[in-house]
Amino acid sequence: MNFKDFVATIPDFPTKGVQFRDITPLMLNGKAYKKACDQMIEFAKEVKADVIVGPEARGFIFGCPVSYALQIGFAPVRKPDKLPRETVSVKYDLEYGSNELTIHSDAIKKGDNVLIVDDLLATGGTVEATVKLVKKLGGNVVGATFFIELEDLKGREKLKGIPLFVLLKY
Amino acid sequence: MNFKDFVATIPDFPTKGVQFRDITPLMLNGKAYKKACDQMIEFAKEVKADVIVGPEARGFIFGCPVSYALQIGFAPVRKPDKLPRETVSVKYDLEYGSNELTIHSDAIKKGDNVLIVDDLLATGGTVEATVKLVKKLGGNVVGATFFIELEDLKGREKLKGIPLFVLLKY
Repeated sequence: MNFKDFVATIPDFPTKGVQFRDITPLMLNGKAYKKACDQMIEFAKEVKADVIVGPEARGFIFGCPVSYALQIGFAPVRKPDKLPRETVSVKYDLEYGSNELTIHSDAIKKGDNVLIVDDLLATGGTVEATVKLVKKLGGNVVGATFFIELEDLKGREKLKGIPLFVLLKY
Repeated sequence: MNFKDFVATIPDFPTKGVQFRDITPLMLNGKAYKKACDQMIEFAKEVKADVIVGPEARGFIFGCPVSYALQIGFAPVRKPDKLPRETVSVKYDLEYGSNELTIHSDAIKKGDNVLIVDDLLATGGTVEATVKLVKKLGGNVVGATFFIELEDLKGREKLKGIPLFVLLKY
């Protein structure tokens, strides 16, 4: 199975000059989607993750099945004003625009082994902010996994020392 | 297991007078989260779902594991300008404010048996709009499942004739 067969490329979305990699065809194919999640699940086992952290909304798409399959917790990372209880937050720049991310203060316990799951590694701004959130709460980031890596954007350089697992590169 | 033990109630969130039911404690407990998803998976089998449709972002939290476990497609319903290819859309009112939802035009094939999955049934605005999106594409809504139903808000009345499965009522 070539996962690239299940990714649509849309030029100039959401802004001119960006080639958007759309994973909805993968999600619509139950076997391909399961196979992708299963590879992330194997990685989660290898790095001995205690808890999965995923940024909204597309981090939930891969992170929630990993959490489900391994019966380990899932902690959502969300935009401001979405999480109702006490949070910590980090501001960061993205590929197009800027953003702030939050996580519930009780989502990670000191010493938890955290695996970050998202659909796409681009400039790495989102995952870098997520790493900071986890560290603020005393968690160990034992790995990060992405369905797609956009190599030209060098997001990997922001994640030195963190084991990475990527299923597809462009 | 009493699922209510894994729901936090936050008064006056996101606006005064709303009691927000927060499911993040459930998600953080791997066993409880899996058990909730497994009950939805059994319902999906009963209604013979071919495809899962879930509104962002919390619909992904339960819908993606259901899709994963049954190896059937998942079609995300998103806010405007999030889905990159051709979409259909529906406007609707919510418990607090108003909204517009979209789905990719190729997400549902004519005659598909669609199960709608979301975290919460409140006034039913979101799910009613989602039913309209599915019908626009020729799909059959064979069921809808929610982790929580807020009975006072009577969302159920908007879903007459659609089999419902709810794990927890307030």
